[in-house]
Amino acid sequence: MRILALSGSLRVASINSALLRATAALAPSMIDVSVSGLVGRLPLFNPDLESTGPLPDAVQALHEEVTAADALLIASPEYAHGVTGAIKNTLDWLVGLPAFVDKPVAVINASPRAHHADAALRETLRTMSARILESASISIPLLGSGLRDEAGMAAAPAVAQALRDMLAQMHAVVMRNQADGGPGNFRVER
Amino acid sequence: MRILALSGSLRVASINSALLRATAALAPSMIDVSVSGLVGRLPLFNPDLESTGPLPDAVQALHEEVTAADALLIASPEYAHGVTGAIKNTLDWLVGLPAFVDKPVAVINASPRAHHADAALRETLRTMSARILESASISIPLLGSGLRDEAGMAAAPAVAQALRDMLAQMHAVVMRNQADGGPGNFRVER
Repeated sequence: MRILALSGSLRVASINSALLRATAALAPSMIDVSVSGLVGRLPLFNPDLESTGPLPDAVQALHEEVTAADALLIASPEYAHGVTGAIKNTLDWLVGLPAFVDKPVAVINASPRAHHADAALRETLRTMSARILESASISIPLLGSGLRDEAGMAAAPAVAQALRDMLAQMHAVVMRNQADGGPGNFRVER
Repeated sequence: MRILALSGSLRVASINSALLRATAALAPSMIDVSVSGLVGRLPLFNPDLESTGPLPDAVQALHEEVTAADALLIASPEYAHGVTGAIKNTLDWLVGLPAFVDKPVAVINASPRAHHADAALRETLRTMSARILESASISIPLLGSGLRDEAGMAAAPAVAQALRDMLAQMHAVVMRNQADGGPGNFRVER
């Protein structure tokens, strides 16, 4: 099972990116979690570039990564009570991608007080017909915890357990989906 | 009086950009409305680029445009029930700019059914301590009107009147502000 992880922050020391790398480090062998390096390499979304083609290389590569993934995992900070421009720009490039429809997506919120961006991100994902995995979309209150890097996060028992449980939830849903015959027969998770 | 207009769409045929150009064409001689060409030239926001300096050229130029403007005018479409990545990216680069505080900002909504992006944009602008000019923040239902370019918009009596009234409101607020001694004494518009 392949999970593509997208961080909404381009900061090298981003705790959202670190959380995704910690998730990758904790993943059991049957789950491959790969953190995309493309978010920061995308051009700003321009519908004209979609309609005149060919797509910019980074966009084409993103489409291939998303298409190949069984599920997406998004962690993104909140900037000025909104989504980051970087993560919304990434999603803007995915609106027209057929493989995004019914794609299972979990959204981690590393800053539970920051509810505006989390709500906006979910609204956009729902509008794009993604399948939000509620049971795997967890809040991890890292802000103020002193945990800044993936080694510290992976070594913190409560954080590591939450991430392992999240992966188990994602795995269960994706396996159930595939047993049911693929995205076309995806069961809505309640 | 100088108004800097920011369009949240990079599409050449964007109706939001056309609306801003129509506003510029209709502006009386004492109001200079200039549509920024920088939105699409900005890199994706990265806090590391802010802290290590110097700022990328396009960001530096945007900061200068915003600082020199008496007011901002924003028109931006809604993508997948959210702000466009392009306009949020522009605002992300302005969060730390001292000149943004108390800056009068009007937000035009060319698609009144699209309320998610309008609300999110206002929430972010308020969080950035901009001064939203409610009386100048108007909805213009262009979608479905058949008006696609600035010549048509400027020639449509109802649209032209709405834009002229908006400019008059912006002018009145900015002049009152300056008479009161500048941004530090800016009166909250109720």
